Amino acid sequence: MGYDWISFTTDYGIDDGFVGVCEGVVARISPATRIVHISHTVPPRDVRRGAAILAQAVPYLPPSVHLGVVDPGVGTDRRGIVIVAAEGLLVGPDNGLLVAAAELLGGVRAAYELLEPAYQLSTVSATFHGRDVFAPAAAHLAAGVAPENFGPGVDPATLVRLPVPETSVEPGKITTEIRYIDAFGNIQLAATGADLDASGAVPGTPAHANLNGRSVKATVGRTFGDALLDGLIVYVDSGARVALAVNGGSAAGDFGGNIGDQVLLLFAR
Amino acid sequence: MGYDWISFTTDYGIDDGFVGVCEGVVARISPATRIVHISHTVPPRDVRRGAAILAQAVPYLPPSVHLGVVDPGVGTDRRGIVIVAAEGLLVGPDNGLLVAAAELLGGVRAAYELLEPAYQLSTVSATFHGRDVFAPAAAHLAAGVAPENFGPGVDPATLVRLPVPETSVEPGKITTEIRYIDAFGNIQLAATGADLDASGAVPGTPAHANLNGRSVKATVGRTFGDALLDGLIVYVDSGARVALAVNGGSAAGDFGGNIGDQVLLLFAR
Amino acid sequence: MGYDWISFTTDYGIDDGFVGVCEGVVARISPATRIVHISHTVPPRDVRRGAAILAQAVPYLPPSVHLGVVDPGVGTDRRGIVIVAAEGLLVGPDNGLLVAAAELLGGVRAAYELLEPAYQLSTVSATFHGRDVFAPAAAHLAAGVAPENFGPGVDPATLVRLPVPETSVEPGKITTEIRYIDAFGNIQLAATGADLDASGAVPGTPAHANLNGRSVKATVGRTFGDALLDGLIVYVDSGARVALAVNGGSAAGDFGGNIGDQVLLLFAR
Repeated sequence: MGYDWISFTTDYGIDDGFVGVCEGVVARISPATRIVHISHTVPPRDVRRGAAILAQAVPYLPPSVHLGVVDPGVGTDRRGIVIVAAEGLLVGPDNGLLVAAAELLGGVRAAYELLEPAYQLSTVSATFHGRDVFAPAAAHLAAGVAPENFGPGVDPATLVRLPVPETSVEPGKITTEIRYIDAFGNIQLAATGADLDASGAVPGTPAHANLNGRSVKATVGRTFGDALLDGLIVYVDSGARVALAVNGGSAAGDFGGNIGDQVLLLFAR
Repeated sequence: MGYDWISFTTDYGIDDGFVGVCEGVVARISPATRIVHISHTVPPRDVRRGAAILAQAVPYLPPSVHLGVVDPGVGTDRRGIVIVAAEGLLVGPDNGLLVAAAELLGGVRAAYELLEPAYQLSTVSATFHGRDVFAPAAAHLAAGVAPENFGPGVDPATLVRLPVPETSVEPGKITTEIRYIDAFGNIQLAATGADLDASGAVPGTPAHANLNGRSVKATVGRTFGDALLDGLIVYVDSGARVALAVNGGSAAGDFGGNIGDQVLLLFAR
Repeated sequence: MGYDWISFTTDYGIDDGFVGVCEGVVARISPATRIVHISHTVPPRDVRRGAAILAQAVPYLPPSVHLGVVDPGVGTDRRGIVIVAAEGLLVGPDNGLLVAAAELLGGVRAAYELLEPAYQLSTVSATFHGRDVFAPAAAHLAAGVAPENFGPGVDPATLVRLPVPETSVEPGKITTEIRYIDAFGNIQLAATGADLDASGAVPGTPAHANLNGRSVKATVGRTFGDALLDGLIVYVDSGARVALAVNGGSAAGDFGGNIGDQVLLLFAR
């Protein structure tokens, strides 16, 4: 019954104390619960990036209530939800933030709308549902309140979902999209390690990456050190996705690119 | 006796390990105490902003020792203090950082100067009292040492207080000051929701905001989505203050403004 | 047996969730372990700065496994190690990051290479050993697994060490290097408080600092308030090192400088 851990992901930033306020709300409701902070510097209102960060993290976390708040629609009629996944619960706005993570936690089993006032703060503001609705819900869920007590069931088919990036593979060629860019400037693509194998790319051989209108020479490698210093590497990253990195530098800094941009990889055959 | 939680607010930044050092000092003195971090990115030496962040947070925290260190006078003759409030303790420099929060915790009941060497590190530096004086004090207080053991009583009337922003309300008009600007660029004013009601402003009607020498059209609303995209909204924020926001954007980014700037709001009548 | 605490220092940044992922890995292996975060914003691949941050912190932490990951050589043949110090364990890459901290914890007693798959995640990526190798090792060590179980012993003489900054002292003169620059812009030098005493510098007297090709007037002081506003102070900082600060400002902002730059201090005699 319940969960020892809440994971917490937001676009609240670290400056204003909003994260600590939510942590305080949890502590008052469920003092024994421990919080693992995933990121609070999701760019403001960037649901897509928040979803990618949360999805990358959840496979490595202990059984948790995953609290995610990137919520440009706060105070409008967008739903607040709890998703019941096979291996955990997810709480936040119904805007696509939570679904990819839920799928990595064994899939969406059920969902409920967060409407029960008994599990919200006594005053609910129009603009800070993280504090007034979502953190209290996560805390009560961690403390063992069953999800179905929070409100009416939500048909999983009606949950808002983000577009899935497209990847196509041919011998010697992968067409895919930028899925994520991390703080080191490493560019993660939607293509997977299996896609790279299917393309016939061979470690140690040259490749070309077309991104942002530029064609860049690269090397198929295993880790950053497999290219010359400042050289571009095409490799399978720690999330099992194909990625582009510059050894000792920043691929995104050198070549630009945004999440969703198309990338073409060509390999020697 | 004592407190399970210490809240922690500083201008130490997150880069240098100063926060972790203080957390280590607490852990050595009172291992069971848990810390909730409010903010460590208060702009350096900005006592006024630190005080606003701490005050916004404390109503939502569990019973705590609130440790606040924004301390431009460290090593001078400014006093280090513990304030006993009705609903918690506050530890830090006597420079106005703590008083607003203490008032939200039921008011200042007593205060003591932190002079007892037994509750400081064995060597006290001239420049890092967070580590050497304040964190040890907070830890000993959390562990149950009574505040009066830390040093001589301080007359609450002599505590340093920050200027209180001024607000005046007439029918159709509020004159007030910027109280806070958050990471989303939302501009919080000193005027309260009650002031907005008293002005006769009606949700859904137009308004004008004069700030930074500009007159900007706005809409009285309840949440960000109540204006057109990129439109300015005048609303009551989650701290029960009147605030200015741009739907999908940053009001401070568009219009500038600093804490303390005067703002004039005019409403249709 | 084991440790209650893991300290955690990386260059992972706070945006991408990498820190939370590692914390999740620890929680799954050793749920009772508590983590104190030192810094996760070490500049990417800056081993020297990471080593300085970690060394400054460890004397103030409770008995811990110190987990440090600034790892430009991840996935190459650089060794992953656990160092047994007199007063704690240190886990991370063998690139100099950990040794200075180990010396402050009573010195290197032994070291082992992290090769035992039983104490790694089942799949080890080539680029995220923090998650796959180091965090699991720290968690198992905290849970009480003995260091010698992780792999073959490493001769302490073969551990990679960073260059030690040089300081020379004459009457009225100190030649030294910049050791660290903190977020306030305070410039910490390698020279110690004992060096300052040996130079004959007298608090309250004038000094000159030559840095970055400029000669700047300064005052020997004890704390920031000992110079006029905007004046440069030469003082012994909270790490017992000679440092340069601007009262109410940023010495590094005014005068520039990087870790390793030579600085000459001249004192009135």
